[in-house]
Amino acid sequence: MSIYLDNAATSFPKPEPVYQAVMNAMCEVGASAGRAGHRRSLEAGRLVYQARESVAALLSIPDSSRVIFTHSATEALNIAVRGTVSAGDHVITTSMEHNSLLRPLYAVRKQGVELTIVSAGSDGCVDPNDIRRSLRPNTRMIAVGHVSNVSGTIQSLVEIAAVAREAGALFLVDAAQSAGCVPLDAVAMGIDLLAAPGHKGLMGPQGTGFLYAAPQVRLKPLIAGGTGTNSTLEEQPESIPEGFEAGTHNVPGIAGLQKGIEFVLSQGVSTIGEKERSLVQYAAEGLASISSLTLLGPADSSRHTGVLSFTVEGIDSSALAFALDQEFDIAVRAGLHCAPLAHRTLGTFPAGTVRLSPGWFTTRDEIAIFCDAVVKCSRAGR
Amino acid sequence: MSIYLDNAATSFPKPEPVYQAVMNAMCEVGASAGRAGHRRSLEAGRLVYQARESVAALLSIPDSSRVIFTHSATEALNIAVRGTVSAGDHVITTSMEHNSLLRPLYAVRKQGVELTIVSAGSDGCVDPNDIRRSLRPNTRMIAVGHVSNVSGTIQSLVEIAAVAREAGALFLVDAAQSAGCVPLDAVAMGIDLLAAPGHKGLMGPQGTGFLYAAPQVRLKPLIAGGTGTNSTLEEQPESIPEGFEAGTHNVPGIAGLQKGIEFVLSQGVSTIGEKERSLVQYAAEGLASISSLTLLGPADSSRHTGVLSFTVEGIDSSALAFALDQEFDIAVRAGLHCAPLAHRTLGTFPAGTVRLSPGWFTTRDEIAIFCDAVVKCSRAGR
Repeated sequence: MSIYLDNAATSFPKPEPVYQAVMNAMCEVGASAGRAGHRRSLEAGRLVYQARESVAALLSIPDSSRVIFTHSATEALNIAVRGTVSAGDHVITTSMEHNSLLRPLYAVRKQGVELTIVSAGSDGCVDPNDIRRSLRPNTRMIAVGHVSNVSGTIQSLVEIAAVAREAGALFLVDAAQSAGCVPLDAVAMGIDLLAAPGHKGLMGPQGTGFLYAAPQVRLKPLIAGGTGTNSTLEEQPESIPEGFEAGTHNVPGIAGLQKGIEFVLSQGVSTIGEKERSLVQYAAEGLASISSLTLLGPADSSRHTGVLSFTVEGIDSSALAFALDQEFDIAVRAGLHCAPLAHRTLGTFPAGTVRLSPGWFTTRDEIAIFCDAVVKCSRAGR
Repeated sequence: MSIYLDNAATSFPKPEPVYQAVMNAMCEVGASAGRAGHRRSLEAGRLVYQARESVAALLSIPDSSRVIFTHSATEALNIAVRGTVSAGDHVITTSMEHNSLLRPLYAVRKQGVELTIVSAGSDGCVDPNDIRRSLRPNTRMIAVGHVSNVSGTIQSLVEIAAVAREAGALFLVDAAQSAGCVPLDAVAMGIDLLAAPGHKGLMGPQGTGFLYAAPQVRLKPLIAGGTGTNSTLEEQPESIPEGFEAGTHNVPGIAGLQKGIEFVLSQGVSTIGEKERSLVQYAAEGLASISSLTLLGPADSSRHTGVLSFTVEGIDSSALAFALDQEFDIAVRAGLHCAPLAHRTLGTFPAGTVRLSPGWFTTRDEIAIFCDAVVKCSRAGR
């Protein structure tokens, strides 16, 4: 039996309606959205619009036209960072970020943006006061990952949003690991920009993601091209969403994402988050017998999601993950998880961790088998 | 019966193996490519690798690792333009280009790049000597669309490549309308950079595209983020392809594209191109009875592909396309087709044209029905 515990990379399986929606968009609709007036194109446009509405429902925002569809959360974060800050601005981020946020920030730093990286504690929690203490008169943005992809640590968004508001800075949230398992209310949480992938907690297909930009946010497009509207303008239009979705939409992917979000909302984001959290707690209990094993992340269960990283003394994380795959057909991820600073913070650099990330479809039986397998591997020294 | 003649926007239907490959990647493989060591991730990586090999076969290039997968041809063109030229460089392009190439060029012009737009003749053909005459000592790039998306005009790539080579300039080809229907041999044709969508002539799903960069080309990434390798580097790696594929791949889309290219190669690119060309010639004959109708593009059939634009005097193009859709369920596209300068060149600005673009699965019967419908609409004055 194949056991998939790598949902933090991409969720698998997807709900059945997701597959059906992808097939329907490819086999029945077929056309490009917003590029012609014929019925197939209009139907494709309707699928994209419905998906925008679903994202709006997920984020509790009133206007779905503030949702930009992207290829990935990475693209969304690049637009959010490069489309807002410029030389002379100051940006604050944290040591828990994924390269999808860090690297765009490093890139703008090379162009004259000042960057402060606030260190989290060894459990991955960032103290909002440390962010406040890092404010400068030119702080233009506070950019924070809602949940660490390494330790599952949940940051105190509301407190950090308050710091951003006080400072008049934009608040950018990387929701890659929270969308679909931690409730999001963009307006109530004071979020100006929110980037998320479609294919993780939202259960859509790979090749999807989005950026939400609050009404007051002005963005510059990263990619220029055909927009289906205003085609006589030389400059890329800065209107949201059209100006930021140049080129042909991934209509099958977006249609699948719509069904993924619909599924998530029908089950309830909190219910999903609770289930995933209880699965990693069950795993933590099952692993407790291994004395050489160290669990990472916050002890307080309300501060983490269903992502759990651990190390086993004397055993290389990659070797352990390899053994779990080869001998037990269990899929976990080992290594640095594209978040090198997070590992320095957690004390697991450069060896990395083994990460398990169950999903909505994971069972307690699967977790029990996983724990047994880790116990066996640990005893065998791999 | 629904008749789809908008294959220049996106091809429809796709070959059956394309749908199956998308489903297999989603339902059976599931994981992210290049992000973990477990078997599902390795299988996803294998799918992506196979697709790279198929692109390499399509372009007759020896090394598939020079193929960067993108979300779209638009993204590929943005990387090609912004990743190579900088202030003080001179770029030559043509008046037949789509906004997906023009707008990135306008964007770098705002950053200090000099831009010359060489005018094509009224049939859409660009004289390579006009490009030669536009050379400057600082000409860094010649950027040309292989085939016009408005008139189907094929440019003389080999002659233009010779001009680029003489000048020591990079030769960028937008193959959005040629990949899959005009033979491409990147090395023999002297192409340094080639951008193509996956979902048009290559019959893959929407949300796919690629950029080929010849071995001597150095590129700077447009988007930074997780690459699955070198994750401790602050700067986005400039290695091709990893550094240019930040974030999770659209594995289902890429797997579908692989099957699309396989289908195209099995039928033969020339065979497909000939069939599509013969279909628009058949259409041209069927439309000839309408005296108020003007066909655009080159008279010489060897200079155009299976894309045909026309106007009918006294009838608005959009109204005609609307009538074809509403009364006959025939999908064509009307308007400026995101290529405003091409319309100025062809003399159809700002009213635009009606464009039909049959595909591999289009039949002569469908073209006959289309011609009948246009005749009826013309008589009815709409």
